[in-house]
Amino acid sequence: MTRHALDVSDDGRILTLSGSEGPLRFHAVWLRDNAQDEETRAPGNGQRLIALRDIPEDTRIEAAEQADDTLRLTFAPEGKTIAFDTGWLARHAYDRADDRAPGWTAPVVETWDSALMNAAPTGDFGEVSADPAARRDWLAQIARLGFARLTGGPVEDGALFKVVDLFGHVRETNYGRKFEVRTEVNPTNLAYTGLGLQAHTDNPYRDPVPTVQVLYCLESSAAGGENMVVDGFAVAQRLRDENPEWFDVLSRHCARFEYAGGDGVCLRSRRPMIELAPDGELIGVRFNNRSAAAITDVPFDDMPTYYAAYRRMGEIIDDPAMEVTFRLDPGEAFVVNNTRVLHARKGYSGSGTRWLQGCYADMDGLRSTLAVLEAGR
Amino acid sequence: MTRHALDVSDDGRILTLSGSEGPLRFHAVWLRDNAQDEETRAPGNGQRLIALRDIPEDTRIEAAEQADDTLRLTFAPEGKTIAFDTGWLARHAYDRADDRAPGWTAPVVETWDSALMNAAPTGDFGEVSADPAARRDWLAQIARLGFARLTGGPVEDGALFKVVDLFGHVRETNYGRKFEVRTEVNPTNLAYTGLGLQAHTDNPYRDPVPTVQVLYCLESSAAGGENMVVDGFAVAQRLRDENPEWFDVLSRHCARFEYAGGDGVCLRSRRPMIELAPDGELIGVRFNNRSAAAITDVPFDDMPTYYAAYRRMGEIIDDPAMEVTFRLDPGEAFVVNNTRVLHARKGYSGSGTRWLQGCYADMDGLRSTLAVLEAGR
Repeated sequence: MTRHALDVSDDGRILTLSGSEGPLRFHAVWLRDNAQDEETRAPGNGQRLIALRDIPEDTRIEAAEQADDTLRLTFAPEGKTIAFDTGWLARHAYDRADDRAPGWTAPVVETWDSALMNAAPTGDFGEVSADPAARRDWLAQIARLGFARLTGGPVEDGALFKVVDLFGHVRETNYGRKFEVRTEVNPTNLAYTGLGLQAHTDNPYRDPVPTVQVLYCLESSAAGGENMVVDGFAVAQRLRDENPEWFDVLSRHCARFEYAGGDGVCLRSRRPMIELAPDGELIGVRFNNRSAAAITDVPFDDMPTYYAAYRRMGEIIDDPAMEVTFRLDPGEAFVVNNTRVLHARKGYSGSGTRWLQGCYADMDGLRSTLAVLEAGR
Repeated sequence: MTRHALDVSDDGRILTLSGSEGPLRFHAVWLRDNAQDEETRAPGNGQRLIALRDIPEDTRIEAAEQADDTLRLTFAPEGKTIAFDTGWLARHAYDRADDRAPGWTAPVVETWDSALMNAAPTGDFGEVSADPAARRDWLAQIARLGFARLTGGPVEDGALFKVVDLFGHVRETNYGRKFEVRTEVNPTNLAYTGLGLQAHTDNPYRDPVPTVQVLYCLESSAAGGENMVVDGFAVAQRLRDENPEWFDVLSRHCARFEYAGGDGVCLRSRRPMIELAPDGELIGVRFNNRSAAAITDVPFDDMPTYYAAYRRMGEIIDDPAMEVTFRLDPGEAFVVNNTRVLHARKGYSGSGTRWLQGCYADMDGLRSTLAVLEAGR
C-alpha cells in the first residue's frame, strides 16, 4: 500500500496526489470522465457508456478520501461518489514536463543499424505456431525492431497466409490477397523483374499504407537476390542529428507518391517522407524512388533544402553501416513494419529461379495479439 | 499552343517560365528528377527507374529551347537533353504563395450540413453495378461528400461484399470480413445492442483506421434505429471558426483510444481527434465516446482547454443542424469515408427486428477506381 497525500484546490477543480512519484495534479473533469464504475464503463467490454455531454461542465470534487489504494471522490453537481485506484492514476498521470525533441519514438521502439547483423531477430515457424511464449517473443521483436525473420516454414503455395494467421489479417489490395515476386515478361511493377531495388517502403502511394509486409520464399536457386532491411527510424534520427533543418523540412512538407500500372489502378497519396505525430513522435517513414511523384507541396524557397535533405536521407539509407542483409531460403520469410523498416533486394539474373510470395497485413492486429499474449504471461 | 518566355538564372539552377499563368520558377534538380523520358521513367508502368543518387548534386540547366508545347532542357554535368511538356509543368508548379489557414481541405472535398437532407447522395445498385458512368458518379459523391446511400440491392447474406466489389477490397479485422449489427445477448461491443449510439467514427482504436465502412440492411421492422451521418470536416471547421484555440488544441495533441473486448483483442491507438497534414490540410477526424481511453498526452496546463474543445466538438456533432438522417430498408446500404463522416443510430427496441451487416474497406481503392473511371470518360 502506498500512502498518498491528498489536496483539493481551485474550488474543487484540481486534485493533487502526492506520493513517491512526486505531486501529480488531475483535473476534476478528467477524473470524472475516466471513472471506471459500472455506470460509466460497461463491465464486460470496458466501453464507455456515457459521453462527455453527460458530465456537467462545472464538475468539481466536493469530497476526497483514501483507504488503502483506493481513492473515493465525490463529484458535484452530480453528487456521485466514484472509486479510483491510485496505481491506475499514477500510471495515467499527465502532469509532467515534456521536453522531448521532435523525432522521439515510443518506449517499445529500439533502433538499430548493421551491428544487428549477427543478432537479427528470428523465429522458428513450428515453435512460433505451437508455443504462445515463442510467438509472444517473436512478435515482441517485430514491435521493438520493426522486423523479424521466420525459418522452417512449409514450402507450399500460400504458406505466407500461415504467417499472417500468427498475428492478424491479410490486407487485400489491387495486387490481390497475395502477389508473386518473380521475373515477369511484361511487368506491371519493377518488383517483378530481376532489377536490384533500392531500399524502400512498400506502397507509399496507398493511404493508409499497409503497415505490415510479409515476404515468403518458395524458390531461391538464382545467384543474387539477397534481401536487406534498414531501420527507417534510425535513418530519420541520424538525419536529424546531422542536420535538424533537413529532418524538419522532410517532416513539415508532404511528398507525393503515385502508382498507375497498366491494370486499371491509379493510386495517389500526399504524405511526408518523415511522419510525426503532432507532438513530434516519429511514427512513419515513406521512401520509394520508383513511385515518388512530382513534389509540388514544398514552397519554392524551401525546395533546395528539401532536395538536399531528400538526397541525404537516400545516402543514409544506402550506407552499408545501416543495413542488415540476409538470404531467404525456401520456407523462410521475413515480416517488416512497413511504416518503419525499409527493405531492398539485390539484383539477380542468369540461371536458377527466385520466387517469393508477398502479402500485406497491419501492425495494429499484430500489436493486439502481442498485448493479449503479454497479458496472459 | 501557349508561348512561354524562358529564363535561366542562378548559374543554371533556376528556370523561369513566363506565360498566361504568370512567372513560374523551377529548380534544375527538381526538373531533372521529374523527367519523363524512357531512361528515367519505365514506359509501361510509369515507375521511376533511377533514384536521386543517380542525379548529380550540382545539376544545372545549360541550354533551354522551346518548340510548340515542348521545352527541351539540357542538363549539366550529365549532358542529357530531356523534353518537358509545358502544360505538365504549369500543372505541377510549386512556385506559389501558400496562405491557407490550418483546416483547409482538398479541392475535391465539399462540406455539408443538414441542408443536404433532401439531396443526400444516392445510387441505385443495379445502375451502379452495370453502368460505369453511374458508378463513377456514385463514387464521385463519396469522394466529395464523404458518404452515399445505395438502394435496390439484393436482400441476402453477404450482399455488402457486392457493394465493396464496386470499388475496392474488404479490410478484414478481428470482427471478421463482415460483422452482424443486431442485438446480442452478451455483446462484445455496444453496437450489438439496441442502445442509441452517439455519432462516431468507427474503430479509432485501430491504426490505421479502416477508411471506409459499409453498412447494409437486411431486416428493419423494429421501430427506431434510424441512421444519421454528420460531416466531421464541417464539424472541425465550425469549431475552428468558433474558436481557433479549440481547433488547435484538438489537432496539436493526441487522444487515445482502446478496445479490449472479451474476445482476445486489445487494440490501442494514439492519434488526434482532428488530424492535419503537416501543412494544415484537414485529413481526418476521430470521435468515439465508447472507445475513448484516458487522455494522457495533453500537458496539465492545456487540459482544461482540451476538455472545453472536446465538449464543444461533441455539442456541434450533436447539433441537429449538422445531421442528415435516413432510414435503411432491406436491400439498402450506406458507405462512409470513416476518416471524415461520423455515423450514428437511434435506439430501437420492442417487437420487430433490425439486422445490418457491416464491413470495412479503404478510400484509396475507391479513389483509384474513381480516377480510372474518370480517365476513361
